[in-house]
Amino acid sequence: MTSELHRAFSRFLSPAEILALSPELLVDQRRRFTATPDIILQPHTVEAVQNVMRHCFAHRIPVTPQGGNTGLCGAAVAQSGVLLNLAKLDKIRETNPADNSITVEAGAVLQRVQEAAGQAGRFFPLSLASEGSCQIGGNIACNAGGLNVLRYGAMRDLVLGLEVVLPEGTLVSHLQPLHKNTTGYDLRHLFIGSEGTLGVITAATLKLFARAQTTATAWVTLPDIESAVRLLTLTQGSFAERLCSFELVSRFALELSSAFSRLKKPDDGEWHILLELSDSLDSPDLTDRLAEFLYQNGFENSIIAQSEQERRDLWTLRENISASQRHLGTSIKHDIAVPIAAVATFVRECSAALAQKFDGIRIVCFGHLGDGSLHYNTFLPDILSNEAYSYEDAVNDVVYEHVLRHNGTIAAEHGIGIIKNQRLPAVRTPAEIALMRAIKAHLDPHNIMNPGKLLP
Amino acid sequence: MTSELHRAFSRFLSPAEILALSPELLVDQRRRFTATPDIILQPHTVEAVQNVMRHCFAHRIPVTPQGGNTGLCGAAVAQSGVLLNLAKLDKIRETNPADNSITVEAGAVLQRVQEAAGQAGRFFPLSLASEGSCQIGGNIACNAGGLNVLRYGAMRDLVLGLEVVLPEGTLVSHLQPLHKNTTGYDLRHLFIGSEGTLGVITAATLKLFARAQTTATAWVTLPDIESAVRLLTLTQGSFAERLCSFELVSRFALELSSAFSRLKKPDDGEWHILLELSDSLDSPDLTDRLAEFLYQNGFENSIIAQSEQERRDLWTLRENISASQRHLGTSIKHDIAVPIAAVATFVRECSAALAQKFDGIRIVCFGHLGDGSLHYNTFLPDILSNEAYSYEDAVNDVVYEHVLRHNGTIAAEHGIGIIKNQRLPAVRTPAEIALMRAIKAHLDPHNIMNPGKLLP
Ligand SMILES: Cc1cc2nc3c(=O)[nH]c(=O)nc-3n(C[C@H](O)[C@H](O)[C@H](O)COP(=O)(O)OP(=O)(O)OC[C@H]3O[C@@H](n4cnc5c(N)ncnc54)[C@H](O)[C@@H]3O)c2cc1C
Ligand SMILES: Cc1cc2nc3c(=O)[nH]c(=O)nc-3n(C[C@H](O)[C@H](O)[C@H](O)COP(=O)(O)OP(=O)(O)OC[C@H]3O[C@@H](n4cnc5c(N)ncnc54)[C@H](O)[C@@H]3O)c2cc1C
Repeated sequence: MTSELHRAFSRFLSPAEILALSPELLVDQRRRFTATPDIILQPHTVEAVQNVMRHCFAHRIPVTPQGGNTGLCGAAVAQSGVLLNLAKLDKIRETNPADNSITVEAGAVLQRVQEAAGQAGRFFPLSLASEGSCQIGGNIACNAGGLNVLRYGAMRDLVLGLEVVLPEGTLVSHLQPLHKNTTGYDLRHLFIGSEGTLGVITAATLKLFARAQTTATAWVTLPDIESAVRLLTLTQGSFAERLCSFELVSRFALELSSAFSRLKKPDDGEWHILLELSDSLDSPDLTDRLAEFLYQNGFENSIIAQSEQERRDLWTLRENISASQRHLGTSIKHDIAVPIAAVATFVRECSAALAQKFDGIRIVCFGHLGDGSLHYNTFLPDILSNEAYSYEDAVNDVVYEHVLRHNGTIAAEHGIGIIKNQRLPAVRTPAEIALMRAIKAHLDPHNIMNPGKLLP
Repeated sequence: MTSELHRAFSRFLSPAEILALSPELLVDQRRRFTATPDIILQPHTVEAVQNVMRHCFAHRIPVTPQGGNTGLCGAAVAQSGVLLNLAKLDKIRETNPADNSITVEAGAVLQRVQEAAGQAGRFFPLSLASEGSCQIGGNIACNAGGLNVLRYGAMRDLVLGLEVVLPEGTLVSHLQPLHKNTTGYDLRHLFIGSEGTLGVITAATLKLFARAQTTATAWVTLPDIESAVRLLTLTQGSFAERLCSFELVSRFALELSSAFSRLKKPDDGEWHILLELSDSLDSPDLTDRLAEFLYQNGFENSIIAQSEQERRDLWTLRENISASQRHLGTSIKHDIAVPIAAVATFVRECSAALAQKFDGIRIVCFGHLGDGSLHYNTFLPDILSNEAYSYEDAVNDVVYEHVLRHNGTIAAEHGIGIIKNQRLPAVRTPAEIALMRAIKAHLDPHNIMNPGKLLP
């Protein structure tokens, strides 16, 4: 089969566009799933993507697009057929400061796009701990979130135009930098968040913003999560859209990250908030205003970053939380969001319910509290590596019951992939799932695009 | 037919929910189209909407939703069956300052929603000259734009959750105030901008923002449109997101509006910009900074509003442009957008081409230049009222050719309705239109929802 495929694709791809099956592209980010494709293709041009899709459509060969392979829900794990790696489709096609836009190819690594925006005197706000390897196409396909959603929105809000190759190979390209355009049903938003199941994203026109001229960063230690929510409301009341990031860190998460990062803990309390304000204009008193605000409102366990190095260290503590957990073994992770008003009750009740049911369970809770979005990772004691996953359903049942009780979501920013598609009927009605299936069936009648992902 | 329908609906609607056929609801905003429905229904509850839809689905009766009837492309004009007026479904269900959200029913008038947000200490940014009568449901169905898109986005960007009654009567409700949620294909964005062709919007959860504590407003007169684009780029460079509105007014538009409004023209040049900065924090020097900026950059024909009254007068001049044209007779209007970098060339070339082809044609050009979005209304001399429409295709051919040459859109913010659906194939590929049709056919197999609108 593989050599037959090799021969077929060699007819329209260059040798460099056909890769060996290397573990680095086959094993997923969490070392949980191993892909088993028949072939890995890495097209260098949009035309090559079209040719691949035409061939696969005609011969009913499954295709799984892959970006930086940093996804956390197994969505880029190919079970058979073609693993379509986009890394070489990575041109920055155009930066357009007049329209505050940048047009890039899907394989461009997020960090490169941030840098290109910076070189044009602008700011591209999507920011994730994985930004050094995740790609724009993957960010769009997952509707990535991250650290700046509070002010700038998620990836969905940052995409002005898309270029997509449909399953049968047709190219649909709308890369104009138009900020208003309502010509029929919005199909762009169907592809954003579709996790490679509707087509291959080849390029996008993204929104740019003004760069921050002033930043003020604080680490605030708090006795309970209610205080964190109170701090959020007060900060938004006083600083409004200048608040860009409002990150929650639990005591346990901080201990792990501080040891891993070889950085001192800023303080020793139960809960911590890393918050950052920014202003696109020069605003020399922003840091003083923040200090004054924290003091006036009784948040006295606060550290204000006094230099760029101090600021970077605080961010390193936040960003290393994911990596610092690895030595604890396998966790059952949750990427959830609840309305802000319900966060404190949720955390309290859910943690109690888990502790009652799973003796000795440890919870690493952190995330983008400003959006109500939490990473809620659970470690069962004395359970070795991937064995933990046999408890996944039971743990999820508890967590998701509490999430849904508070009108939350079971998938805030990492997507559905193969780890949550059986849960989709819990959050979407039969009518909605039927519509999703109809859209999928129309675009992909032979179900070749990333089969088995997203839809149950 | 009508009395039969009356009897049928009387079984599940109260007498107050069945209206007489009054001209005010039948004639469209521009007095161009007259609706010819068999009956007008005005349900008071979501359940009543569901019952209406169930009955109409079973009996294949066309249904045209109607909001404030301020739409400009004939999208709410019922050709037969039920005209479904949403005005009584108008509750403000909840304001939620912690999550910066408000949940309102579809029939709530935009201005009431702005006021409710204000009472909760927040700001709802959608703002149109028709805000005193257009409704949230209509705003969502058209993806309305208006004066604050530059900073806050169009209606699409302001909707967190939707409640929709599908054609067969099922209710799909997602009114959580979640800022992140990626659970399958995004269906919300299909309904936003669908012009009543996919279902009836009954409620929405909308984003709120901080209120402006400081505003600075200027009227700048300019010799040519290139200078206006230059001013835009410079203002964004200096004030970034503090720039909320950047409105273009042509000499002719100002003359009309100044006479109509009984307000003196601020100045006498070819082109005018009304721009407004705002800051959610107290920023006492914003007005001085704006004055200084304009002076330093050589925009000396500028007036800075020195009082709230002066500011209101400047805005009245802008907002009355639409109304002040009426005595000129019928115009062929265009709701277009082009990339900012192309605006000046577009206006110059298109106006020249029109003047050459249509002797004595007059153009009222104004709009939201900050978004590249222009209202481009053309008046043919000596042509009486609706007779003008016999020239519509010929005028459109010229305008749209120039718009598309510059990668623009023929429908920026008013929608497609019945006046542009035949043009959709010029801006959407066959594959896209086929997908739109498949979505429509799945949700509305008997084509009862606003038939004849949006799709060609
Ligand atoms: C340390 C760490 C921190 C993270 N933090 C965050 C965070 O804060 N917020 C957040 O949202 N995520 C976070 N993530 C998750 C992940 O980085 C994002 O989901 C990212 O958007 C995935 O991009 P990728 O290029 O790696 O995609 P991949 O993992 O390669 O693929 C993800 C999905 O997108 C599809 N896909 C990829 N490219 C294309 C394309 N061109 N066309 C069509 N489909 C495509 C794949 O088929 C798959 O379904 C984090 C991950 C790590 C490892
Ligand atoms: C003076 C003036 C200035 C304007 N300025 C602007 C502007 O700056 N920007 C802009 O974008 N528009 C502008 N408009 C156009 C218009 O006001 C907007 O399109 C507005 O959003 C229409 O809302 P409506 O409630 O009046 O909808 P209607 O005209 O009643 O209906 C419009 C469409 O929405 C559908 N619809 C209405 N309610 C529902 C519902 N509940 N469920 C499903 N479908 C529904 C209808 O079927 C129809 O297709 C202006 C209009 C006027 C008269």
